[in-house]
Amino acid sequence: PCLSQQHSIALTVCVCVYMSKAAAKTQVEFEYDGPSMKTEVPGPRSKELTKQLGEIQNVGAINFFCNYEESRGNYLVDVDGNRMLDVYTQISSIPIGYAFVNRPALGIMPPENFPEKLAESLLSVAPSGMSRVQTMACGSCSNENAYKAMFIWYRNKERGHNNPSDEDMSSCMINQSPGCPDFSILSFMGGFHGRTMGCLATTHSKAIHKLDVPSFDWPIAPFPKLKYPLEEFTRENAQEEARCLEEVEDLIVQWRQKGRPVAGIVIEPIQAEGGDNHATPDFFKKLRNIARKHGSAFHVDEVQTGGGATGKFWAHEHWGMDDPADIVSFSKKMLTGGYYHKDELQAYRIFNTWMGDPSKNLFLAEVLNVIRRENLLEEVTRSGKTLLQGLYQLQDQYPNLLSSARGQGTFCAIDIRDDATRNSILLKARDKGVLLGGCGDRSIRFRPALVFKEYHVHMFLNVFSDVLAEHN
Amino acid sequence: PCLSQQHSIALTVCVCVYMSKAAAKTQVEFEYDGPSMKTEVPGPRSKELTKQLGEIQNVGAINFFCNYEESRGNYLVDVDGNRMLDVYTQISSIPIGYAFVNRPALGIMPPENFPEKLAESLLSVAPSGMSRVQTMACGSCSNENAYKAMFIWYRNKERGHNNPSDEDMSSCMINQSPGCPDFSILSFMGGFHGRTMGCLATTHSKAIHKLDVPSFDWPIAPFPKLKYPLEEFTRENAQEEARCLEEVEDLIVQWRQKGRPVAGIVIEPIQAEGGDNHATPDFFKKLRNIARKHGSAFHVDEVQTGGGATGKFWAHEHWGMDDPADIVSFSKKMLTGGYYHKDELQAYRIFNTWMGDPSKNLFLAEVLNVIRRENLLEEVTRSGKTLLQGLYQLQDQYPNLLSSARGQGTFCAIDIRDDATRNSILLKARDKGVLLGGCGDRSIRFRPALVFKEYHVHMFLNVFSDVLAEHN
Repeated sequence: PCLSQQHSIALTVCVCVYMSKAAAKTQVEFEYDGPSMKTEVPGPRSKELTKQLGEIQNVGAINFFCNYEESRGNYLVDVDGNRMLDVYTQISSIPIGYAFVNRPALGIMPPENFPEKLAESLLSVAPSGMSRVQTMACGSCSNENAYKAMFIWYRNKERGHNNPSDEDMSSCMINQSPGCPDFSILSFMGGFHGRTMGCLATTHSKAIHKLDVPSFDWPIAPFPKLKYPLEEFTRENAQEEARCLEEVEDLIVQWRQKGRPVAGIVIEPIQAEGGDNHATPDFFKKLRNIARKHGSAFHVDEVQTGGGATGKFWAHEHWGMDDPADIVSFSKKMLTGGYYHKDELQAYRIFNTWMGDPSKNLFLAEVLNVIRRENLLEEVTRSGKTLLQGLYQLQDQYPNLLSSARGQGTFCAIDIRDDATRNSILLKARDKGVLLGGCGDRSIRFRPALVFKEYHVHMFLNVFSDVLAEHN
Repeated sequence: PCLSQQHSIALTVCVCVYMSKAAAKTQVEFEYDGPSMKTEVPGPRSKELTKQLGEIQNVGAINFFCNYEESRGNYLVDVDGNRMLDVYTQISSIPIGYAFVNRPALGIMPPENFPEKLAESLLSVAPSGMSRVQTMACGSCSNENAYKAMFIWYRNKERGHNNPSDEDMSSCMINQSPGCPDFSILSFMGGFHGRTMGCLATTHSKAIHKLDVPSFDWPIAPFPKLKYPLEEFTRENAQEEARCLEEVEDLIVQWRQKGRPVAGIVIEPIQAEGGDNHATPDFFKKLRNIARKHGSAFHVDEVQTGGGATGKFWAHEHWGMDDPADIVSFSKKMLTGGYYHKDELQAYRIFNTWMGDPSKNLFLAEVLNVIRRENLLEEVTRSGKTLLQGLYQLQDQYPNLLSSARGQGTFCAIDIRDDATRNSILLKARDKGVLLGGCGDRSIRFRPALVFKEYHVHMFLNVFSDVLAEHN
């Protein structure tokens, strides 16, 4: 009864399978009567899996792979059948002993199916040029750790080797350089990359996100302010993008001169919280080249744009590049946080207790199956086209109310006359049963699920049209 | 068949209940045929739940409460029966529409049972003087957001009101003061509070955690280096603690003078990663008073010590204070991250997309039931006493190998002659089927689950004794 073709319930399938095993467990007695060792640890199966996972992630901290289904009470069983009395419990993280439901410390003791599930889920949609991925618990942690990976990479490049000096080791303990170097991340005005302190130093969307929190003196470049539709203003837009790129280079030089070199550049393919600001593929190609020229890592933050809403799985695919980035971070629609990275940005020292949650990888694998089976990216492209056409028509109809309709796939937005009118429209639409979100000072953003079809678009446009008529 | 008294499988109970509903779902048709509004939004039930949740958390960002079981495809159903076409999908976070398994954005659209589950789980074990809790996805995010709450609180106190100036609003957008003030957090040498950039500035356990990552110029105080057993060296230990407290006050004054006032002090009840360093209740009481005297918030980080391993649910309960802290953060054994805080440290601006994961609260509620039903804190106290006695005996037997046995509950540690011997002991114990962890330069730490009973202690001591004999 669990199996179904209907995508709205596809996720329950995987959970039902998960559960029938759990039910079976309740038949088994409580605990083992002592340790039992079959092989050395890590045994051959753990070594084999470590090698497999090594193709995907750094495995420097992995102890061995676990069979969580056989682990019980105070006993952890590994994939080679070794049963150990656990007096460490995943860095003190298993409150009442091993039960069917655990939250393993993925960085040191992953479950047996972890490499396979990573391959089925995250790796199967890896961006061009990237075959390595690190999972994290949320978007902010993904970006924080991506920044750390860029800092470590940059410092090793600067040193010429990976061996820190005694001075590095002692000075870092008290937050001082050279151990804690004065590196910076270049970000863009209007960008949003999260709210923890490292991320927040690169977030410049709204004052309310940043107010009262200490920050870093890092360079902030202007993001292009383009005119829409992009194809009607190509010359002006190209000039604006050139101006911003020039400023980026100036800032990199300035910050190098003041002793805070730019280790990485972070940017969203479409600035989302900042008001759905777009730039052209040409801008991103040139920016990527500037990063390369100055030896800075290039980090594309796809936390909001990733997962299919633009009609491609990653928004940066619209740029048509083989080597679009050094790091691509994700969260939200991906159900788990994390980031992809090029081989050279691998860092053994990226670590925490949970490193994400493997149950989310299972769910993601199912979500990706549905996306493929139902051709949802094509659906998004079709719905998005209809949505944007509808917005253009409404904009022609209400020129004093609406402007700058824009979008890729269903990742669309439109500007409203002013903040007060925007907020009133959002509330009136909700009263009529349509949930919308705002972004920037006076934009409405559209962020439907990937199952938003053309008939949903028409339903939305009808309601929206009624609401606009009330505000004209 | 799912119900069982056996604590090793208690968690499956809650999941089985969860699942039978899911199975029922598969009978239902796929999607609704349009929006359907019954009340204004938020309706009376949402308002009632918002009021309930308002007793526990800030609800400034809550839109309404959702009935995720009735939500399907593109339609979100609220607790008042309003069915809305969702063109926003929880800030773009529901990839293929509403299915049974979702990951809701808790800060804006929590499920109906969220206040009840918070009350059953986290609030039922709230530290003395705290009735508010904020969930987060991991330990680092918990501390990052706790720091932000302290900064915001401190700045509002400094201003005398909560209304930022225009200069505050504009300067914070470019990372400059006064909008991003030069506040600091005072931390302790040997402390560990996480690895994201704000946390990392307060972490001083190992160089490898901090190396190559830019940091803040924040004050770092010495943590007392005590002699064990504590009760045999009371006079010397009291002197050492007095020295450290004096240094704390000096640093607070110095940092105020250099324009980086100490907004908060963060400390672990037992420094865990740093080598299981203890201090006396008297030290913590005096430190709490110093924080109060200088107007700094007092943040107790119980990420590793919390959840029962010390024989009390929170390690700070051993201090015997009615008002032990302004903020207590947690993660690990609690299955979800988060922090408790006093009313005055509430901040509307603490926010992110997921704010944790409600499924973890369900699991935690079950874990707490097991802890109560099986009197596991008493069990821990009993096992811990036996463990520590056993370590004392081994220390007497091997005085050249072992020293400084110490602990609270089963949260114990012992020092080994040197780093190389420690690591060899860890590996040899594992070969014999016992998993242990190291901490600090040459300590072994014991972190069993709460179901580690006296007979497990004896089993461990037998193996440990054999391993020590090989190293003497």
